[in-house]
Amino acid sequence: MVDHIKVIAFDADDTLWVNEPYFQEVEQQFCSLLEDYLPRHTVSQELFKTEMANLPLYGYGIKAFMLCMIETVLRVTENTASPAILHKVIEYGQQMLNKPIEMLDGVEDVLKALSGKYRLVVATKGDLLDQERKLKKSGLAHYFHHIEIMSDKKESDFQKLLKHLDCSPENFVMIGNSLKSDILPVLALGGYAVHIPYHTTWQHEHVDVTIEDPHFYQFNSMADILPHLIS
Amino acid sequence: MVDHIKVIAFDADDTLWVNEPYFQEVEQQFCSLLEDYLPRHTVSQELFKTEMANLPLYGYGIKAFMLCMIETVLRVTENTASPAILHKVIEYGQQMLNKPIEMLDGVEDVLKALSGKYRLVVATKGDLLDQERKLKKSGLAHYFHHIEIMSDKKESDFQKLLKHLDCSPENFVMIGNSLKSDILPVLALGGYAVHIPYHTTWQHEHVDVTIEDPHFYQFNSMADILPHLIS
Repeated sequence: MVDHIKVIAFDADDTLWVNEPYFQEVEQQFCSLLEDYLPRHTVSQELFKTEMANLPLYGYGIKAFMLCMIETVLRVTENTASPAILHKVIEYGQQMLNKPIEMLDGVEDVLKALSGKYRLVVATKGDLLDQERKLKKSGLAHYFHHIEIMSDKKESDFQKLLKHLDCSPENFVMIGNSLKSDILPVLALGGYAVHIPYHTTWQHEHVDVTIEDPHFYQFNSMADILPHLIS
Repeated sequence: MVDHIKVIAFDADDTLWVNEPYFQEVEQQFCSLLEDYLPRHTVSQELFKTEMANLPLYGYGIKAFMLCMIETVLRVTENTASPAILHKVIEYGQQMLNKPIEMLDGVEDVLKALSGKYRLVVATKGDLLDQERKLKKSGLAHYFHHIEIMSDKKESDFQKLLKHLDCSPENFVMIGNSLKSDILPVLALGGYAVHIPYHTTWQHEHVDVTIEDPHFYQFNSMADILPHLIS
């Protein structure tokens, strides 16, 4: 890999910093709010159903999540919910947006070691303002040559990114925690991809697949990539 | 202007296509929903207050607008609102997201005339996914070399955009309907700016200012810029 790569792209949520656990924590609180109406696991399923139905319309991010929780409340309570529940939902969402950044292990050391040797970029889904804010709060922004906040991470989205970066797939490596969003589309284009699994993944990002590709790497932690990128 | 410009940036909402009237239409419907609780103009003021309070957290766009309407319902009804009202709010928001694109007069002809002679870009605020969708629906995407969806349009945001486009301010012109967001920050950087007022502007974008700057132009319609950009 070291002989080919010019651009290293990092996913952000659950690759640079903690994200999914906050969503799961709020989902737990959300299930508690509706416990009088439905069993917890049913609430959870209903929320996921709402999220999937609205994904093409809302996209990813906390505001979409808030709107889906609100819609789920109205539906599962058949419009009998106390407005206090909706108030709580808004409060949870705003707390999520205001959360401090919890960096993942080894991230800053890796960026420091690679900085100056490669063009480093962030390639992340989610809300524009929210992702910009997180990057700013993280103090990591100065390591990156470019920040790409993407409405989706399909093959065509990475194609656009590569064109924009004026980079061939064989000179590009994507590092991320989602096989579906960070790894498979990049390998399909002929790029390199490094999977660093996170202990928890959103149901929507699950894929059941065995990857055999000479451009594919899998490591337990961010620091493990360094021997492959620094000769 | 014609001797200097290399990059022409267009604002999107109410510059390329109709936007603000849709927000105002929904705001009117929203005021009707709450008529039993408060006079219409008070509802409108309360909504604006909520929007301003949440702007740093939510940013611009329809999802933010939906969340602000919901929060306003809960507050002005003191948590006594019928959930049916909230249902309506979600419906209005989703209808906005699904609206077809209504192009403004002369836009496509102007893009056609300038295409190939300049690098054309879109520089717009708003929701990432929503703006991408509108551009796709408009059929105008192929005219543009680059699409920049910005979380804000302050001087520093345009500075980043210019750096990203590798363009000096004196080779850049911004065309838009908002003095506050499209014109003043670009003039402050030494760029050119063309104001094409739209018949209605969001209260938040209002500024009361007289501009005297040799880089400033004001026209009634998009087509009026052509003689200044094609020699």
